[in-house]
This record gives sequence, structure tokens and C-alpha cells, in this order.
Amino acid sequence: MKQVNLFAEGKFSDKGMAKLLVHDSPYFKILNFNFQPGQELPVHAHDIEGQVSIAVLAGEGEFLGKDGASLPAPTGAVLVCDIAEPHGFRAKTAARLLVTIAPPI
Amino acid sequence: MKQVNLFAEGKFSDKGMAKLLVHDSPYFKILNFNFQPGQELPVHAHDIEGQVSIAVLAGEGEFLGKDGASLPAPTGAVLVCDIAEPHGFRAKTAARLLVTIAPPI
Repeated sequence: MKQVNLFAEGKFSDKGMAKLLVHDSPYFKILNFNFQPGQELPVHAHDIEGQVSIAVLAGEGEFLGKDGASLPAPTGAVLVCDIAEPHGFRAKTAARLLVTIAPPI
Repeated sequence: MKQVNLFAEGKFSDKGMAKLLVHDSPYFKILNFNFQPGQELPVHAHDIEGQVSIAVLAGEGEFLGKDGASLPAPTGAVLVCDIAEPHGFRAKTAARLLVTIAPPI
């Protein structure tokens, strides 16, 4: 049993999205990404099996998809997609994401 | 690609913890549990392989463990444990949890 307080441990950076590894096991990998306003996780995809969930814990922004697609991403929004499907995020305000990848990359 | 807004779709109930299935796939199962103050997910465990993560999206409470153990669970706290390990949650304020189980039960 392990507990992490993301609002205390997850830092921001002026240089770009800041990343905190929360957990890594054979079952899933859990990361915390923190953004200053305007920072982004560029659209990307990995050609492997599995899915990713992206939950907005604080702040707001937009989920990004292929061909310039975007979806509103307020606090409480959760995106789920195949890891092979293009996905990304752009922060409007300071924002904290919880990202879960299964199976772990 | 699927998006769910938990703060809009995840309801509360006066009868006890309210549950919303967010996603179920061969990779993971994602649930949203919503609590009124004082409501709880009783300590429980399943004798199977895998792990569970429990993230506090809103509100606060305490994570519960075996033998009456408890850990503070403010917004932004994430608990990770084996599914076979006793775990639970008790809400102090109205609270929203994001629960991810891998592999899915």
C-alpha cells in the first residue's frame, strides 16, 4: 500500500510539462503531469497494445487528438484511448493530470 | 477515444456511495465513486492478481486499511495497492474518487 499526494509532490516547471512517476508495476504505470498555462503534451502515439486514461485533477485545458482535433478538458474530465491512437493535452490554466497506462510501457 | 466528465456525470446518492462505470476493457476497469460526507467504501479485498489505484478528485476523507488503519486522503491523494490487500475509503466532505483496476475484475 502506497500513497502519494500529487498536490504536494507534483511540481510545475517554467521549462515545460513536469512529470512525476507515481507508480510502475507489471499491471499499470501511473504518472502525474503538471502544466503551467499554455504548456502542452504534444499529440503522440505508440504503436503498441494497451490503453491510456488521462484524468484532469485540477485546472482546465483541452485534450488533443489526430488531425488537430480537440475536446474540452475541465477538472473532472477523463479521456480513455488506445495507446496507438494519437492523444495529447494543452493547458489553459495551470493543470494537473493523472495518467494511467495499462499494460505499462 | 472516449471522454467522460465525472463532475457532470458522476452523481451522489443519499443511500450510500454512488458508482459510475467509466470504462471497462481487457486492460483496465475505471470507476468513479461519489460520496456524501460520512459515506464509505468499506474495507475489502479480493483474492486475485492485480492492483488498484484510488485517486481523490474532489473533497477529502481517509483511506482505510487492515486492522483499522487509516491514512489522510485530501484532494490529489492517490493510493495504490494490491487488490488482495484490504482497502477502503471514508468521506469527510462530499468526495469524488477515480478508481482504476488492472487487470479488470
